[in-house]
Amino acid sequence: MFDLMIATLDWFGVAVFAVTGALVASRKQMDIFGFALLATVTGIGGGSVRDLLLGQLPVFWVKQPAYVAICVAVSAVVFFTAHIPESRYRLLMWLDAVGLAFFCVVGAGKGLEAGAGPFIAVVMAVITASFGGIIRDVIGGESPFLLRKEIYVTAALAGAVVFVGGHALGIPDAVSAIAGFAICFVIRGFGLRYGLALPTYRARPGRSEEQLKKLGL
Amino acid sequence: MFDLMIATLDWFGVAVFAVTGALVASRKQMDIFGFALLATVTGIGGGSVRDLLLGQLPVFWVKQPAYVAICVAVSAVVFFTAHIPESRYRLLMWLDAVGLAFFCVVGAGKGLEAGAGPFIAVVMAVITASFGGIIRDVIGGESPFLLRKEIYVTAALAGAVVFVGGHALGIPDAVSAIAGFAICFVIRGFGLRYGLALPTYRARPGRSEEQLKKLGL
Amino acid sequence: MFDLMIATLDWFGVAVFAVTGALVASRKQMDIFGFALLATVTGIGGGSVRDLLLGQLPVFWVKQPAYVAICVAVSAVVFFTAHIPESRYRLLMWLDAVGLAFFCVVGAGKGLEAGAGPFIAVVMAVITASFGGIIRDVIGGESPFLLRKEIYVTAALAGAVVFVGGHALGIPDAVSAIAGFAICFVIRGFGLRYGLALPTYRARPGRSEEQLKKLGL
Repeated sequence: MFDLMIATLDWFGVAVFAVTGALVASRKQMDIFGFALLATVTGIGGGSVRDLLLGQLPVFWVKQPAYVAICVAVSAVVFFTAHIPESRYRLLMWLDAVGLAFFCVVGAGKGLEAGAGPFIAVVMAVITASFGGIIRDVIGGESPFLLRKEIYVTAALAGAVVFVGGHALGIPDAVSAIAGFAICFVIRGFGLRYGLALPTYRARPGRSEEQLKKLGL
Repeated sequence: MFDLMIATLDWFGVAVFAVTGALVASRKQMDIFGFALLATVTGIGGGSVRDLLLGQLPVFWVKQPAYVAICVAVSAVVFFTAHIPESRYRLLMWLDAVGLAFFCVVGAGKGLEAGAGPFIAVVMAVITASFGGIIRDVIGGESPFLLRKEIYVTAALAGAVVFVGGHALGIPDAVSAIAGFAICFVIRGFGLRYGLALPTYRARPGRSEEQLKKLGL
Repeated sequence: MFDLMIATLDWFGVAVFAVTGALVASRKQMDIFGFALLATVTGIGGGSVRDLLLGQLPVFWVKQPAYVAICVAVSAVVFFTAHIPESRYRLLMWLDAVGLAFFCVVGAGKGLEAGAGPFIAVVMAVITASFGGIIRDVIGGESPFLLRKEIYVTAALAGAVVFVGGHALGIPDAVSAIAGFAICFVIRGFGLRYGLALPTYRARPGRSEEQLKKLGL
């Protein structure tokens, strides 16, 4: 049951992140196979990093190639429809938030499945949820979402803590999973909608490369 | 025989990609050990990612350190000769195309060796062929080749499909390998020479960071 | 004894690199959980890449979660004190140098522990020492330290060669470790303090993206 639920959520998370990868490809005007590569790497990237770190090898999509097929299919759909949404960037941010919420639950679940304790399960959740987007932004030449001021890591962390906490307390996993997903999505959504942010480090922004050069650093 | 052929092609691919890494180091005016690091990471990066994902650990060059030695030797040669070619950037693009062609065949071959089916073998081919260059461009602070409009991922994909298809049809592997190499190189070469490209997504380019900021996104 | 010494150095290296990650987070004005993520990824990134390549899985911090806890604790301290140093960037560079020196010894030691020969142990040292900083700079959107002209890779290489050489010659490991650390730190420190650099490739700097576009490349 637990495995099945996590696997189901995983499919959704992979598909949603694949859409965000394809949307970045559309922003960069890549061709259809570029779409497919960026969608696939984004969809399966976070989970691959997780499986690597846990030593669960080969990674999940080598065992179940349908994950890759989903990403490729999704990228084709986006290639022909990306002009439709009024603001592709806004869509990208919201889908990224949905993927973040799926993957913080899935990442924590996979960590627990692999026998890790609750602390490492939460760490795996944050890594799974963040790295798909990081890889997408780095390969796609975008400024990482992570660096944006609106609550991002915090949302993934909160969702993972709720799910792992619920699991530890013996609450039915489906309930914990829904609660974890909801908490993560709501927190990130508030951040996006209202520009909500935790207090950030503001004392003194970093100097730019040019300013540092003038100072001889 | 199959193993031997794949291994031979692998040596060429690693050496050629190491040259491209060293050429990027020369563009960035690094010192000789910087050359060695960037050449090595580029030469063995794609194959390392492939071995990691397949769970073939430790990665190939830990078992055969001569791969690293080749990369270091190549980087020293480039350090003293990189001023010779009239256009280093053009040389870089063409050698990258040669490496792409070698690695799409090698990546597919290693996937088949590891027991993966044809679909995953093709995926491994594309990943092996792309990631050396991606790592080089990201560490070297260059805009990823992948984002350039000329057919790139497509070429690797076509070469891999030809090789894996030939293998499945029982065609001698040497023939399939040469055909796969040739298809990949010719497609990418046409792209480079004539600026040939698949239809790209053009409906609406992405907004820049600055434009998004003005819109409050 | 050997294991214990390497493990102790590892703790210091992880903590120091975590501080550099948190300092980059402060330059980018991230929130406290962004600090925690960037500090953690920087602190454990180099060692994770090393463990992955060697096939020592799961990676070290999954077995000993306290490594992650240290990174998180360090990031919280930096969040509240990063305004104190007069030049955060200078502090970042010097702590990066300390981390580099710790990790070149630790990386080589872990390579030897895993049964690798001296050559691969040195390669692992350079990779362990470089990749924490590379991951920090790539995710943090900074220009990689590696690309700076002052001796960087060279310092890590020298420290690793001294440590591995001393180990091979039967010199007590504590002595070799201190010597390796000192050599690496002194070389990098001279580079930072006096702008010392090995002769770099200077024949002809690379053209910028814009210049290449004008040439039709």
